[in-house]
Amino acid sequence: MGGSASTDFLKIDTTMNRLTIPPLDTQAEQKAASRMDRLAKPPYALGKLEPLAARIAGMAGNPAPRLKDKAVVLFAADHHIADHGLSLTGAEVTHIQTRNFIDGGATISAFTRNAGARLTVVDVGVDYDFGGYPGLVDRKVMRGANDFSEGPAMSREQAERCLEIGIEMARAEKAKGLDIIAAGEMGIGNTTPSSAIVAVMTGSPVELVTGKGSGVRADIIRRKIELIEKGISLNRPDPNDAIDVLAKVGGPEIGAMAGLMLGAASLRVPIVIDGFIAGAAAAIAQGIDPAVAQYFIGSHTSAEPGHALIMKHIGVTMYLDLGMCLGEGTGAALFFPILDAATRILSEMKTIDEMCIIQNK
Amino acid sequence: MGGSASTDFLKIDTTMNRLTIPPLDTQAEQKAASRMDRLAKPPYALGKLEPLAARIAGMAGNPAPRLKDKAVVLFAADHHIADHGLSLTGAEVTHIQTRNFIDGGATISAFTRNAGARLTVVDVGVDYDFGGYPGLVDRKVMRGANDFSEGPAMSREQAERCLEIGIEMARAEKAKGLDIIAAGEMGIGNTTPSSAIVAVMTGSPVELVTGKGSGVRADIIRRKIELIEKGISLNRPDPNDAIDVLAKVGGPEIGAMAGLMLGAASLRVPIVIDGFIAGAAAAIAQGIDPAVAQYFIGSHTSAEPGHALIMKHIGVTMYLDLGMCLGEGTGAALFFPILDAATRILSEMKTIDEMCIIQNK
Repeated sequence: MGGSASTDFLKIDTTMNRLTIPPLDTQAEQKAASRMDRLAKPPYALGKLEPLAARIAGMAGNPAPRLKDKAVVLFAADHHIADHGLSLTGAEVTHIQTRNFIDGGATISAFTRNAGARLTVVDVGVDYDFGGYPGLVDRKVMRGANDFSEGPAMSREQAERCLEIGIEMARAEKAKGLDIIAAGEMGIGNTTPSSAIVAVMTGSPVELVTGKGSGVRADIIRRKIELIEKGISLNRPDPNDAIDVLAKVGGPEIGAMAGLMLGAASLRVPIVIDGFIAGAAAAIAQGIDPAVAQYFIGSHTSAEPGHALIMKHIGVTMYLDLGMCLGEGTGAALFFPILDAATRILSEMKTIDEMCIIQNK
Repeated sequence: MGGSASTDFLKIDTTMNRLTIPPLDTQAEQKAASRMDRLAKPPYALGKLEPLAARIAGMAGNPAPRLKDKAVVLFAADHHIADHGLSLTGAEVTHIQTRNFIDGGATISAFTRNAGARLTVVDVGVDYDFGGYPGLVDRKVMRGANDFSEGPAMSREQAERCLEIGIEMARAEKAKGLDIIAAGEMGIGNTTPSSAIVAVMTGSPVELVTGKGSGVRADIIRRKIELIEKGISLNRPDPNDAIDVLAKVGGPEIGAMAGLMLGAASLRVPIVIDGFIAGAAAAIAQGIDPAVAQYFIGSHTSAEPGHALIMKHIGVTMYLDLGMCLGEGTGAALFFPILDAATRILSEMKTIDEMCIIQNK
């Protein structure tokens, strides 16, 4: 990628461009909110969609924004902590499913098609040689995150590289035209680093934020909790240094997702937060620059325990109650059409005044 | 409309065609559920979408249904019980807004466009002479429902006529191609008959199921409750005779919505239930033929008190938590794209077997 993206927060000594996250455009937001109040409907009848549409106006800096260009960027990586047998499926599912995303047969493939969104798939750390698979963006930083119960998951340099890749991807999507974005992921075992991040960033007990991931048994959850606790006490990640947390108990795709969020916010692009792993990435991004959270929009309530906690931590509301627990960006992609509808209110509805003038002419 | 639609349940002595609601196709449903279990995702990772997609397969009688043709049929009517000053807006808003639906400037106009759905607007009882407004389907049964605090809202014949109109509309939509439908409504004051219906059909106290509607004040809510209680004790609607309830304390648009639901179910078309008023209509339809409820799909949780109660009564789950309280069919239309996504799972995703065969070739 060369020197395309970097931030002041990243301590890499190359090609630094300061990444600035602008505040919301309060004038656009207020203009949208004021129009909302005058539309042909009872006040507040559209509930949570009303402040949501106004906030999107503030993000976009446009009182009547439209969400035409939508993208999900999905980052894939493996996790050697999963070698302890924390998942019901083998690690080979990461690379098999990564190709399935591109070939169009996965849930996120169907859901992005459904929402009229682009899907970009990026290898940041899959433990497999794809050999230049067509359509896959190759940004491999490592072949699987290290087992963090034995030492850091990544070096600080690797973690920063992942953030940079995410920022690069946000800029690449923006260059294609971009009104809204979500970060998705694939990585067998990646609820384990996510639980570790959530425990550290929120100061919560590990057992409170650790669940079954993709269907593991109760006895394995106990093992998962023990490994996370071991990893945290061994690596001592500093909750006041989010990059340290990312490096020590995180993973490549989580870093790239956090980078995508920082990059999108710097470009005034609203970011829809998917499930538990996206929540962990959002907490890292927010730890790096709290301003990023202004651009967050919640989507669905995941079945993973700890999801509600991390969503509260990053300050987002959930709107869909579907009991989903998949990742890939699927919950966010399902919410795209509803956000589309919310912004249409601002540009397609008549105000009461406009309507009465028309009716009386 | 002539003798196009009628049912065995309706006691009208003309052109009777028996309306039969077929049971779900359990073979199609099981085939869908079985495929769902073999798809490239962890079991149950798609939560509530999985049984929902399988049920739609059972409704449609197709193991891999697609929801291509979507429609909202919106019925408009006035209610003379609102002459007691139960709404913040005057009754003229019903006819002004009815034209706004057709002209494309209302919320449901924007939301049906967003979902790629048709919107059909039908006058069943607006107290206004539209003079052949282009695009409006004229099936006016009366100029506003009678004040049911003084006597029945409609005669039994008028109530049956409204049901017939709904059935006719379901058939007309089916003739254009129809995979999923929702009933919407407009009628200043129509939360009042809806609360009355919900109280009678569920045997609940009126005050438990009566709310502010489109923004009325606390003192007016008290008056609204008193009028509903007076209307119920005066008219003595029989909860075991849903048409009697509809006639005595209901209204034209609620009857037509119930008819649309009965008609759609007879044609194997899934019906998305919108908010509180649609819930009251669904309770009437279910009272006429309990089999209709097999074709119901819930959508959003309305802010109107009594909404959760009536949704439980008709046996549907809600999926969207948006705090909306508008009607028009808006909550249902917002849910269309998610149902689209749910059915895409069945036709567009690969099974684990299919994926491994492809990957290993």
